[in-house]
Amino acid sequence: MKRICVVVASRANYGRVKSVMKAIKKHPNLDLILIVGASALLDRFGNITKIIEDDGFKIHRSIHYVIEGENLTTQAKSTGLGIIELATAFQDLKPDAVITVADRFETMATAIAATYLNIPLIHLQGGEISGNIDDRVRHSITKLADVHFVATELSAKRVIKMGENPKYVFNFGCPSIDVLIGQNLEINSAIMKNQLGAGIPLNWKRPYILMLQHPVTTSFGEGFEQVTETLNALKAIPNFQKLVMWPNIDAGSDDVSKGIRHFREYNMSEPIYYYKNFTPENFARVLKNATCCVGNSSSFIREGSFLGVPAVLVGDRQKDREHGENIVFSEYNTKEIVKKIKSIIKVGYFKQDKLFGDGSAGEKIADKIYQLNFSEIK
Amino acid sequence: MKRICVVVASRANYGRVKSVMKAIKKHPNLDLILIVGASALLDRFGNITKIIEDDGFKIHRSIHYVIEGENLTTQAKSTGLGIIELATAFQDLKPDAVITVADRFETMATAIAATYLNIPLIHLQGGEISGNIDDRVRHSITKLADVHFVATELSAKRVIKMGENPKYVFNFGCPSIDVLIGQNLEINSAIMKNQLGAGIPLNWKRPYILMLQHPVTTSFGEGFEQVTETLNALKAIPNFQKLVMWPNIDAGSDDVSKGIRHFREYNMSEPIYYYKNFTPENFARVLKNATCCVGNSSSFIREGSFLGVPAVLVGDRQKDREHGENIVFSEYNTKEIVKKIKSIIKVGYFKQDKLFGDGSAGEKIADKIYQLNFSEIK
Amino acid sequence: MKRICVVVASRANYGRVKSVMKAIKKHPNLDLILIVGASALLDRFGNITKIIEDDGFKIHRSIHYVIEGENLTTQAKSTGLGIIELATAFQDLKPDAVITVADRFETMATAIAATYLNIPLIHLQGGEISGNIDDRVRHSITKLADVHFVATELSAKRVIKMGENPKYVFNFGCPSIDVLIGQNLEINSAIMKNQLGAGIPLNWKRPYILMLQHPVTTSFGEGFEQVTETLNALKAIPNFQKLVMWPNIDAGSDDVSKGIRHFREYNMSEPIYYYKNFTPENFARVLKNATCCVGNSSSFIREGSFLGVPAVLVGDRQKDREHGENIVFSEYNTKEIVKKIKSIIKVGYFKQDKLFGDGSAGEKIADKIYQLNFSEIK
Amino acid sequence: MKRICVVVASRANYGRVKSVMKAIKKHPNLDLILIVGASALLDRFGNITKIIEDDGFKIHRSIHYVIEGENLTTQAKSTGLGIIELATAFQDLKPDAVITVADRFETMATAIAATYLNIPLIHLQGGEISGNIDDRVRHSITKLADVHFVATELSAKRVIKMGENPKYVFNFGCPSIDVLIGQNLEINSAIMKNQLGAGIPLNWKRPYILMLQHPVTTSFGEGFEQVTETLNALKAIPNFQKLVMWPNIDAGSDDVSKGIRHFREYNMSEPIYYYKNFTPENFARVLKNATCCVGNSSSFIREGSFLGVPAVLVGDRQKDREHGENIVFSEYNTKEIVKKIKSIIKVGYFKQDKLFGDGSAGEKIADKIYQLNFSEIK
Repeated sequence: MKRICVVVASRANYGRVKSVMKAIKKHPNLDLILIVGASALLDRFGNITKIIEDDGFKIHRSIHYVIEGENLTTQAKSTGLGIIELATAFQDLKPDAVITVADRFETMATAIAATYLNIPLIHLQGGEISGNIDDRVRHSITKLADVHFVATELSAKRVIKMGENPKYVFNFGCPSIDVLIGQNLEINSAIMKNQLGAGIPLNWKRPYILMLQHPVTTSFGEGFEQVTETLNALKAIPNFQKLVMWPNIDAGSDDVSKGIRHFREYNMSEPIYYYKNFTPENFARVLKNATCCVGNSSSFIREGSFLGVPAVLVGDRQKDREHGENIVFSEYNTKEIVKKIKSIIKVGYFKQDKLFGDGSAGEKIADKIYQLNFSEIK
Repeated sequence: MKRICVVVASRANYGRVKSVMKAIKKHPNLDLILIVGASALLDRFGNITKIIEDDGFKIHRSIHYVIEGENLTTQAKSTGLGIIELATAFQDLKPDAVITVADRFETMATAIAATYLNIPLIHLQGGEISGNIDDRVRHSITKLADVHFVATELSAKRVIKMGENPKYVFNFGCPSIDVLIGQNLEINSAIMKNQLGAGIPLNWKRPYILMLQHPVTTSFGEGFEQVTETLNALKAIPNFQKLVMWPNIDAGSDDVSKGIRHFREYNMSEPIYYYKNFTPENFARVLKNATCCVGNSSSFIREGSFLGVPAVLVGDRQKDREHGENIVFSEYNTKEIVKKIKSIIKVGYFKQDKLFGDGSAGEKIADKIYQLNFSEIK
Repeated sequence: MKRICVVVASRANYGRVKSVMKAIKKHPNLDLILIVGASALLDRFGNITKIIEDDGFKIHRSIHYVIEGENLTTQAKSTGLGIIELATAFQDLKPDAVITVADRFETMATAIAATYLNIPLIHLQGGEISGNIDDRVRHSITKLADVHFVATELSAKRVIKMGENPKYVFNFGCPSIDVLIGQNLEINSAIMKNQLGAGIPLNWKRPYILMLQHPVTTSFGEGFEQVTETLNALKAIPNFQKLVMWPNIDAGSDDVSKGIRHFREYNMSEPIYYYKNFTPENFARVLKNATCCVGNSSSFIREGSFLGVPAVLVGDRQKDREHGENIVFSEYNTKEIVKKIKSIIKVGYFKQDKLFGDGSAGEKIADKIYQLNFSEIK
Repeated sequence: MKRICVVVASRANYGRVKSVMKAIKKHPNLDLILIVGASALLDRFGNITKIIEDDGFKIHRSIHYVIEGENLTTQAKSTGLGIIELATAFQDLKPDAVITVADRFETMATAIAATYLNIPLIHLQGGEISGNIDDRVRHSITKLADVHFVATELSAKRVIKMGENPKYVFNFGCPSIDVLIGQNLEINSAIMKNQLGAGIPLNWKRPYILMLQHPVTTSFGEGFEQVTETLNALKAIPNFQKLVMWPNIDAGSDDVSKGIRHFREYNMSEPIYYYKNFTPENFARVLKNATCCVGNSSSFIREGSFLGVPAVLVGDRQKDREHGENIVFSEYNTKEIVKKIKSIIKVGYFKQDKLFGDGSAGEKIADKIYQLNFSEIK
């Protein structure tokens, strides 16, 4: 049995690796070792341990390594603490390989701990370009990783061009698409009744706009203003309910949260409901059934292109990212955001785009992991 | 004035960045901010703070972040602790850019701390290939770095191929070559009298063989045997004095040191002298005047090719590295090492090879740093 | 000049040391070195850096060392991280003595860092007994401290009985009382207009009840229920406005906060206003003008006894604490709390009690620090 | 089954807790959980994991948390890192109680981690007085501990006077005495053949002087000179072999080691043998059969008084410690040391003194731990 360790270190991580975890767990020759850490454990950012356990996964270690402060220094230091803590866990759990996802500071901590412990490192979602500091981190992790499961053809080419062995670069699509396949993505109050939030509850039979906007590390300190522009745009669009999600933990998420709290305090009567997190499936439902999305979440590009949901991407967090036709971009500017939302709503839903895969990534990845000869890799 | 921070985190670092530090210090528009940390502060590995201060540099911060144990786990954790400590120092000292050298775990700590603090990162010696885990770390740092001062043309090409902006990739040669230029590299007992060590003192007028062999992270646990093969080879070559240097700190250096201590204990009468460290100039002297070098130090390749000193590279630590004609390779095998040493000694000194530069790197790098527009970079 | 370092690591710390800081700053032979850290920097717990700077103090270092999670493990680890970070700061700032206040985990971190760096340690508020785990920590710090400025006669006796040198035990009263002296403690909307909070704003001309309830470490996991009992009691008392303060950071504060947030969400129309923090002076105003206090804050005992404000102490966090006549105790039980509040309100204000000092502690402490011969102490 | 966790964090710790570990392991209702950490894992300080395993104990966790540097700052930071690492281990291993020994920085780390995790803390060797900074740390740990197994009657009185509950203070003597009972303490080359060291091997049939001298934290920086005085004294005493042990890890141990290395380098022909560590039994042998001891080890006082071995205590590390008649004190002064050694050798062996117990501590402690009701304690 190969022991494959997955580190889920944020709410966003989970949706992107869940189908891989499922396939590993099901595989007769693989053992799933699960570490949950960092913001994935924090109530403020939507503690997802319950969701993970309800999905039937056993958590082997829960590790706190977020140094509170949400600024640039604490982000660096949380990475350092994460390395220290994950090194302990890897030493105890002795996995045959470690899977890390995407480009966040927790991902970097996982990558470095595994590298220095001589444990083969498997990276998901390498080779993408978003146009900000995440690119540096993502590519840096690519150069530490031994095996790459990328999400698009273009990403595969970039990873190989960076010097990685093509023998270990595989494009099976993004596991986040798998969640959209083979299940009822209808939304209604019965299904959503356990998803707690705050504000004016939504009537799921009526149209709503979904907002999710994260801080941008390279413009640290501007998150309050940035999110306020978007929130004011929501307010300026009548006849729609709105669903607002709180941001991920990141340098600056405190600013964005403050912007949302401040807006909420003065707009209690607006038809807005505020959520911290969803199960991956419920997030898929919320996304699929939105009339339009607004903010800067990469899910609008990734899952959004597959679902064909129109989305207005605000600011430059995703400016260079490969995307489908469902996306338009806007500056941080209430007027422009309003205009772009109104015009894309008129267009309506887009055709399914398989740019990020066809929904079969999880099983293909697990199977390939089983076939890999780790002793040859490291 | 631009504040340029150099982090010297090991004995080996210093020789490779000293001429850059000198040029920054001398430059009318640059301020040198100097952090000395990790093994560079430890007596066991040849504390070099005195050497640095004697060279006229002011140390702004001395930071200990080596978690003792010299195994894979402590190497990972020292990286984590280094990030935490360097983030504090960068936050306090507020440099405009940070310079990091080569590929060690301390280099990675510097790179990550600077990256997450949004400080432009300058990397020296990127793009090289040695054939072991150091490659992963070196390239990973390249992808975090904003500016690259590489040491060979081939390295420049590799860095650009990895996707770095050619506008910020410069080949001015390796600063370690600068130390070899413009000064008397003669060796004699007067010059060397302050270099303390242990063993049977060398007569500098007579020929000697230089040995320097580090642990190899990817074959952790085999260092004792590896170094013993080489030491036994030294013993088997009569008519030469031998100069043995203790290894760098690294996962496994404890094993190598134990091998040397063990050998020494049972071979007290062998004509061997043991050193922990040298000033960069004295190391250049020791290297230039050796009849032959043996071990796996990259200095045999780098400075060695410029000086034309014959060297036997043992094991695979440098197996894929670009090198001059002065190098032959050997397995970890006493007999083979003896044979290779004897045969290369017969060949004698080689012609100067400028593969790693012509000795003018330091000033060119400082000048280019002055010209760079950091606000455009980050 | 003696360099005296004060570490302010929580909102509560500041009010208890402010008058000492002021007196040190004013003293011609003392230099105030100020470190602000831990929860004192966090918005969630009422970031007080602005308040401190508005009071005219210069902050020499701001250090984040709270590992988020608010459980027992993160409390332990935050202590560890605090030691690492404070050791760096003490090494850089080289104070002649360090002042630490009371009994929290940040206090312990300060005490240990100073002790191992051989820096004389001055402890405020030693020798008190509250009846929970804080006692162990407080007395443990007493045994590390070199100089003790206690707040009551009984505390002085306890410290001496523990073996401390009576020569270095001084009872000048508690500096938190100093804030109550020599200034107008009237409350009105003009004075309070910059104190932001959330909820139904208070009319300061009308009576209100003040609630402040922290988690109790030794009953970790019960905070939600504990605070809910008190909040329901507030709800059951008509004809009063209520002012609720969010708890300190501590293992369990997340539970208490969740209890408050949950209560608030379902009781938006209750006449309650929620505050995160105050300047020490405004907190004194809010306390002095309350009709009654409820919760488990030691300020009800300390400042409260001097001001004569009636208070109902809930649970066992302060059960063994020396207190004046203004205090009654209650179980965590809505009915009992309601009954106790109603009956103590009928009694009305109490006579001033100088149990915790007469308001002159700050200057006396600064002066004594000046007189101490530290080289004899350590 | 009660799970009792022992943390062995230095060579010295082990001898003092081994008989307790043995008794816990043997006890039908107790489970021994063993953590080995800090300098107990380091070759430089005599890695004792092999000794522990050869004694039949299973090590549940090996944790490195020594930040190298051996100065005051790294001692503080190692304490901080130790808390972080031990909190992880305690959280995973879930002991019902934790045992910590004596007064070193690793002991403090154990005490704080257990305290904040609400795990009952059992302290061995509390209440003693040595006359240096160790006293502050030892007493501070006493105030954190819930149960106290002290080594002398006077210590018991001191612990109770500090306010600890007499119900939980037990004097069963020191477990280090247990090692001296019921076994053959004869010494000969057959028994000692596996104890590796360096230097001129001892002839165990002939008399020898034992030296063991640690750094003194409060006179940090003077260790080189201090140990040199003692070594020169050894040299000045002819007709005896000498056995020198390397010091414990502590702020300053690097200085002491440097002093020993330097002395050795220039006195290779002196009849001195250098050891890093022994099994507790072999240490007992070495101690019992010495003609005289010199240095500042507390074992000369503790085990030495029971064995009646004459000892010269150098400096003030133990100056206030309760001791038997076998002890005389000396300044750091070669002449005085020589004089005191010569004069006490003339007196010869002393009568057995049971000041530190009769050798039955281990079993009594294990049995009492079994009887304790931890739920009542914490």
